[in-house]
Amino acid sequence: MIDALIRLLGPDNVLTAKEDLIPYGFDGTAALKQLPRAVVFPHTAGEISTILKLAREHRTPVVTRGSGTGLSGGSVPVAGALVLCVLKLDRILEVDEKNLTMLVEPGVVTQRIFDTADAAGLFYPPDPGSMKISTIGGNVAENAGGLRGLKYGVTRDYVMGLEVVLADGSICWLGNKCVKDVAGYNLRDLFIGSEGTLGVITKVLLKLLPKPAARQTLLATYAQMDAAAETVSAIIAAKIIPCTLEFLDRKTIRCVEDFAKVGLPLDAEALLLIETDGHPAAAEDEAGRIEALAKANGATSVKRAANAAEAAKLATARRSAFSALARLKPTTILEDATVPRSELAKMIRFIEQTAAKHRLDIATFGHFGDGNLHPTFLTNERDTAEMHRVETAMKEIFDYALSLGGTITGEHGVGLAKKAYLRQQLGEGSYRLLEMVKRTLDPDGILNPGKIFERK
Amino acid sequence: MIDALIRLLGPDNVLTAKEDLIPYGFDGTAALKQLPRAVVFPHTAGEISTILKLAREHRTPVVTRGSGTGLSGGSVPVAGALVLCVLKLDRILEVDEKNLTMLVEPGVVTQRIFDTADAAGLFYPPDPGSMKISTIGGNVAENAGGLRGLKYGVTRDYVMGLEVVLADGSICWLGNKCVKDVAGYNLRDLFIGSEGTLGVITKVLLKLLPKPAARQTLLATYAQMDAAAETVSAIIAAKIIPCTLEFLDRKTIRCVEDFAKVGLPLDAEALLLIETDGHPAAAEDEAGRIEALAKANGATSVKRAANAAEAAKLATARRSAFSALARLKPTTILEDATVPRSELAKMIRFIEQTAAKHRLDIATFGHFGDGNLHPTFLTNERDTAEMHRVETAMKEIFDYALSLGGTITGEHGVGLAKKAYLRQQLGEGSYRLLEMVKRTLDPDGILNPGKIFERK
Repeated sequence: MIDALIRLLGPDNVLTAKEDLIPYGFDGTAALKQLPRAVVFPHTAGEISTILKLAREHRTPVVTRGSGTGLSGGSVPVAGALVLCVLKLDRILEVDEKNLTMLVEPGVVTQRIFDTADAAGLFYPPDPGSMKISTIGGNVAENAGGLRGLKYGVTRDYVMGLEVVLADGSICWLGNKCVKDVAGYNLRDLFIGSEGTLGVITKVLLKLLPKPAARQTLLATYAQMDAAAETVSAIIAAKIIPCTLEFLDRKTIRCVEDFAKVGLPLDAEALLLIETDGHPAAAEDEAGRIEALAKANGATSVKRAANAAEAAKLATARRSAFSALARLKPTTILEDATVPRSELAKMIRFIEQTAAKHRLDIATFGHFGDGNLHPTFLTNERDTAEMHRVETAMKEIFDYALSLGGTITGEHGVGLAKKAYLRQQLGEGSYRLLEMVKRTLDPDGILNPGKIFERK
Repeated sequence: MIDALIRLLGPDNVLTAKEDLIPYGFDGTAALKQLPRAVVFPHTAGEISTILKLAREHRTPVVTRGSGTGLSGGSVPVAGALVLCVLKLDRILEVDEKNLTMLVEPGVVTQRIFDTADAAGLFYPPDPGSMKISTIGGNVAENAGGLRGLKYGVTRDYVMGLEVVLADGSICWLGNKCVKDVAGYNLRDLFIGSEGTLGVITKVLLKLLPKPAARQTLLATYAQMDAAAETVSAIIAAKIIPCTLEFLDRKTIRCVEDFAKVGLPLDAEALLLIETDGHPAAAEDEAGRIEALAKANGATSVKRAANAAEAAKLATARRSAFSALARLKPTTILEDATVPRSELAKMIRFIEQTAAKHRLDIATFGHFGDGNLHPTFLTNERDTAEMHRVETAMKEIFDYALSLGGTITGEHGVGLAKKAYLRQQLGEGSYRLLEMVKRTLDPDGILNPGKIFERK
């Protein structure tokens, strides 16, 4: 099979030496690694089709990979797997300003999509934390979220069409540039978030928006976490949907300040970073109302960014949370349990109690407006006893999130990391439905096996 | 089987007499009818589960139906079918103002959802033309569109969760109140727009928005259709996304004016009805810019509605287009070929040429901003020769829409009316994928058989 791959792709596009394989044996998820058998770099959908046919013939698992920034182990290989790396499919094929769309290959880095839209006066809203490195193919496969989810939604909301190669090598196009289309089942949305287990994405047609004319950035400081949660409820009750509504807890604040030196208040129990955008009057008006609501709900201070540079500094501080926390301990496990917005205060309190109960170091930050929290375990994977307590605490956190009507993963995916919990969230009927779909689309189980589903 | 149904539901909820069955033998689609074997009115998902198990046992086709306003024959029975009418599942179960959601049963009429949200200061944007009569279950099953699609999207964009009963009678819940959730495949979106062929929808969790604070309504008149199309391009190029951007051609204008008497200009070749909404300054500013763009692109007049009553009158005029046209001839066939927005002018010109070529009466109106046109054939189903020309013209229109990267149906569904064209649009690979999904979810083919797919 390796020979056939070399004939197909050329020797430069097939890696088999152990030292070359090492970087492809892990992704952004702590404590997971496995060397693949080989790594291949196709340049076209046609090549990918042939690779999948070969893999099926040889019963070889195929794990699709972009930049490997995933946080649920979705691109960590299984033993003997072929890693199909799409980084060489990296062209922006079209920016269509009349229809507000962009057609790209899966290996294009997300930031480049944002920048290309921006240069045309347009806006690609999804902004996962990893956007400077992550690829759009990975964003689509994981249905990546980001900081603007509350107002603008997630990656799924900006995918109008997909080209996918199925397990049997057939190439399908799903979707088009029409704003409305109801011809047949929506299978495009089935592939979005399918984590490489149903097909390989080879083209993405993205929807763009006009660029918001103005933006306002606010930083609200709280001596009590509950007051921050109440502010969020008050903002929604006032029928305001900010673009960004981010939260940092005390531990994250200190850690980010130490890392980024932007002048965050070290004595605060909680911070909210809030952005409004749109028409200048709307952004200004909403920011003013939010400022008043924050003060009325117990903020000790509310600061408005005076200009774009100051706003960017605050946003960068929030974006650096994960990197800042990752410096503290050898192992950083970033979770993304998510609850309906109304249950946030309960969830945060529970995480704090769980950390105390199990003597664990958990810093929490996240997308408050989305109910999407990132309790971040600062630990050491070599400390077996502590890792056992981490596992126990994590299970308690997931159980509690589910009891509040939440989800085990808001934006990172199930992958390897959460497959033990999926059945519990979905219930038996829905879980079986997912298994049926997987068996139908990948009857030989060659596409990213061992992910999402538990073996029986 | 009828006896078992009567035991399950009571005699009042099972219709079998011919005169009772007649209203359930057709929907809003011209020239299609077929009496069912019986009509049943369940009150719960549990009853629906039992009905499907019985139907499967007796190999009886089940056709789910709401108010029967569909325009592609999706709820027209096949011979021997059981019509499962959901009008008695009509409760609004919850309005959750904290999470901006509403949980409803499928038989709730769409207008009631809009009104209930409105009363809470919230906004349910999808507004299909039939919203005063149609049910939310039907809207979800067909992924109904409406007049606000350009800015606000379609029904799919407002469904956060679904309860569905599968062909084997199992009840699945898909989705939740979380703004972000990536736990497992997105099967919720598979059922949205599946036209009753994959399962029966028994609960819908809807997403709501804050109500826009202000609205501006404009009416622009044109002596040439091309100038109207250029105005639309200019609006998008100016990075403005209006809430509504509707188009009426000369024939529709005259017909609507005759019907609704709102003072539309009878000498106009085309009209655009444009609404902006949101923050008062944003709505005002956008309306002003649109007014200037319309004039710069050849509008003979641009009128701004002075107040809400005047705006409502214009919107009602547009909404009455179908009813107004339906009075002219015995048979009205409302099509919804849709193209990328940039191709609209070409598509409209082609429809005019096709009408002339085949000596047919076609009035065109529709959602200009969405590229979603409604060429409406005014004909007589008893005139066999003319109906044959209608068929030919329709095929030419679909072929042309597809050649422009469009779709055979923007918002009405495939149903019976368009299944002959679906394979052509999707291509062999994607069509087979749809067939695989159908076989997997409904192996005995009892759910709305004969719809979407052509028999081999």
